[in-house]
Amino acid sequence: MKPIDVCLSPELMHLYDVRGRAVVVVDILRATSSMVTAFGHGVDHITPFADAERCRSMKSAGYLISGERNGITLEGFDKGNSPFEYKEEMEGKKIAFTTTNGTVAIEKSFGAKEIMMGAFLNLSAVAEKLRQLDLPVLIVCAGWKGKVNMEDSVFAGALVEKLKNEFEPECDTPLMAQHLFLAAKENLAAFLSNSSHVKRLNKLNAHDDFEYCLRYDVFDVVPVLREGALRL
Amino acid sequence: MKPIDVCLSPELMHLYDVRGRAVVVVDILRATSSMVTAFGHGVDHITPFADAERCRSMKSAGYLISGERNGITLEGFDKGNSPFEYKEEMEGKKIAFTTTNGTVAIEKSFGAKEIMMGAFLNLSAVAEKLRQLDLPVLIVCAGWKGKVNMEDSVFAGALVEKLKNEFEPECDTPLMAQHLFLAAKENLAAFLSNSSHVKRLNKLNAHDDFEYCLRYDVFDVVPVLREGALRL
Repeated sequence: MKPIDVCLSPELMHLYDVRGRAVVVVDILRATSSMVTAFGHGVDHITPFADAERCRSMKSAGYLISGERNGITLEGFDKGNSPFEYKEEMEGKKIAFTTTNGTVAIEKSFGAKEIMMGAFLNLSAVAEKLRQLDLPVLIVCAGWKGKVNMEDSVFAGALVEKLKNEFEPECDTPLMAQHLFLAAKENLAAFLSNSSHVKRLNKLNAHDDFEYCLRYDVFDVVPVLREGALRL
Repeated sequence: MKPIDVCLSPELMHLYDVRGRAVVVVDILRATSSMVTAFGHGVDHITPFADAERCRSMKSAGYLISGERNGITLEGFDKGNSPFEYKEEMEGKKIAFTTTNGTVAIEKSFGAKEIMMGAFLNLSAVAEKLRQLDLPVLIVCAGWKGKVNMEDSVFAGALVEKLKNEFEPECDTPLMAQHLFLAAKENLAAFLSNSSHVKRLNKLNAHDDFEYCLRYDVFDVVPVLREGALRL
């Protein structure tokens, strides 16, 4: 069995060697859920930027620019971080994307053999792709400004659980995440409703986003990083 | 209610502000369990050192020197990291102590209002001391070489659970730890037996240490840091 590991925060990425690995970047609320939604609606590619100003500069190259900090759309950007903004008029579009946590997690994964975006919305598709790749797996949770968060950890556990017959936990974090998922799975929304980011989203009137991002397997797409951009 | 938070690894300590807080340092297998055992048997004080050579130099000042790296006693040191080495002949002794993870966690907590050592062996005593202090609490898990581990996280959850009527989780990690503890509490040993560090200890023939370190409330002592040393 190949190993599977979980990095609970981008701030711990220096402890992991991504070379030769398949990395799954997770930012359930809401970056990777929004990206998966955009690909489910036909976007051509998404170029991630950790730096907001570099992202903004892509406007002149014909990109839609998507930017969010602390859950709020950046001034002058076309779109923010709500998945509902990525459901329409996506066919053939290209997007430059920057978020508080998700794009940092992507940049810290550079050097891996494969980098893909994971969310509950494409959980089974990600699991199937990992089985096909048959590489050691590292799940990278985006967290919140470096801190470990609940929803990304629970997703990591869902993926570890789904792959438990083919991949073996390499350290304690996959087991911890798996226990959390098993405690959460009967009612994800209730389990996560006390988490700090859900409270933050509720203040932003984004409760619909929260419920949407917890749906399983809405899309059969796995965005992967190729030549600096996410593509199918 | 005062806030309670959990830092799952010393590598994340830059994200937390310890000023004005009561910090509980946790290294269940085995540093804080050994320290609590030594105080339960009458040691006068323990001076922690992150650096092994500084620790070694204390021998000439009349200290017992305790040192471990990767679970193995350092050459030329009087004692290693097994709690059974701290059960006898401790009355009035002074110890210089360095370990792979625990002493790093202590040094990263410098600047807090109070720093104390927590273990299952003194869980209720620590909880009672925190109630009396009535300060915001941060539990610092020593982890393993920067990575998050199971046993320290489960202990953090036990302490959050014990204080749930007086202290309110500040972020997601106290909730995550609490869920882990609730899943583990019926049989801590079975729950933890798959963790990576327990496997490591078993290779070192330290299974007795493991079982001992999971006992609740054997000692009514709380070692606290004062003037550079742990004392009662």
